[in-house]
Amino acid sequence: MMKVSAERIDVTQSIYDENDRIAAETWKVLDEKCIFTVNVMGAPGAGKTSSLIHLIQNMPQTRSYVLEGDIESDIDTVKMKGLGIETLQINTYGACHLDAPTVQKALEGLPLSEPGILFIENIGNLVCPAEFMIGEHIKLLVCSVAEGSDKPYKYPLAFEKADMILLTKIDLKAYVDFDEAFFFKGVQALNKDAAVFEVNAKTGEGFDGAAKYLENLASGGTEVKTYP
Amino acid sequence: MMKVSAERIDVTQSIYDENDRIAAETWKVLDEKCIFTVNVMGAPGAGKTSSLIHLIQNMPQTRSYVLEGDIESDIDTVKMKGLGIETLQINTYGACHLDAPTVQKALEGLPLSEPGILFIENIGNLVCPAEFMIGEHIKLLVCSVAEGSDKPYKYPLAFEKADMILLTKIDLKAYVDFDEAFFFKGVQALNKDAAVFEVNAKTGEGFDGAAKYLENLASGGTEVKTYP
Repeated sequence: MMKVSAERIDVTQSIYDENDRIAAETWKVLDEKCIFTVNVMGAPGAGKTSSLIHLIQNMPQTRSYVLEGDIESDIDTVKMKGLGIETLQINTYGACHLDAPTVQKALEGLPLSEPGILFIENIGNLVCPAEFMIGEHIKLLVCSVAEGSDKPYKYPLAFEKADMILLTKIDLKAYVDFDEAFFFKGVQALNKDAAVFEVNAKTGEGFDGAAKYLENLASGGTEVKTYP
Repeated sequence: MMKVSAERIDVTQSIYDENDRIAAETWKVLDEKCIFTVNVMGAPGAGKTSSLIHLIQNMPQTRSYVLEGDIESDIDTVKMKGLGIETLQINTYGACHLDAPTVQKALEGLPLSEPGILFIENIGNLVCPAEFMIGEHIKLLVCSVAEGSDKPYKYPLAFEKADMILLTKIDLKAYVDFDEAFFFKGVQALNKDAAVFEVNAKTGEGFDGAAKYLENLASGGTEVKTYP
């Protein structure tokens, strides 16, 4: 988020209000179509794309769709499509997060013909995406052990707002001296509700449980927050 | 950076202009004091703080100062001070980058009594900090192999604007299948001038060369860009 002085707060507030209005519209359309929508957030290189691939492959009975957000490039979309996953690329060309108008516009290009789960992979950024609703049912935070165990303390908003957290690259724990107790203490202090799953995209470890949890949320088997 | 619609561009432009004006003022003050200033950018968990500690410890003849930027917490400042490094904390409480007014204000609290090198550790974010001058002589980009080799393609601005790049956590290369050729091809396409140093904060490997290069820049032994 741009830092603004007091006299510009009205402009900022109106941007937020307009964003939220459009996010609520999008949410309503998606919800009526029975498209459970997941806003996937995380730092650059946290393992968002690899995690989505594993989650989707662990839900063969569920129809999955992906909106792939990147500042530039279509590397992840090419990867997704190569695996037969219905994916649409959004490039923001500079903008540090997806906002509701961008997502609303992009969805015109994704038919979403049957009920299922839509993953919207946000820009790799542990700060700004957490501030903007884009029409999602839940926020999934992807965080890698290689980022260090102090991330909840330094980037609290993303952890606070997450409904579900994937702790990725757990095979690297020993190499990066990841302090598990410190990490979980930080998460717990910010967010008592988010389910945390430890995963390893190299072996697929942990994704079966995460996928089951997500499918359960999507089918309404677990309480799902209504908008917002 | 906040994404803005056409009618808000004038506000955005005036924020940039005002920022640049103050950055130039700060640069002039620092330059006159012979304080060579380094804007340290990188994603969350890239290894910015560990890298600064190693660089500083490899320059025992140079007086070093640190402005430590974080959204919240003072974890890194406590670590720095524990090592005897003169450090001042800046907390942005939400803002995703440091801007020139924030840095100018913070510098009032850091005496900078002798010539030396001032490191300003920006917020962990591979997007927004690259857009704002804060009074620096150079930008140092810290990027970890654990983030993956595609980062120059996905976050081009930070790589384009860097004067010097540290590729960190090189001990993890084998574990994360880091594609060196792809990474360097991406860097090269965006930036032919930035010196890249491969480093490992666990062993200290590579920091001697990086520190020597930086000291040489600071002493004017290598061409240093004048403001901006």
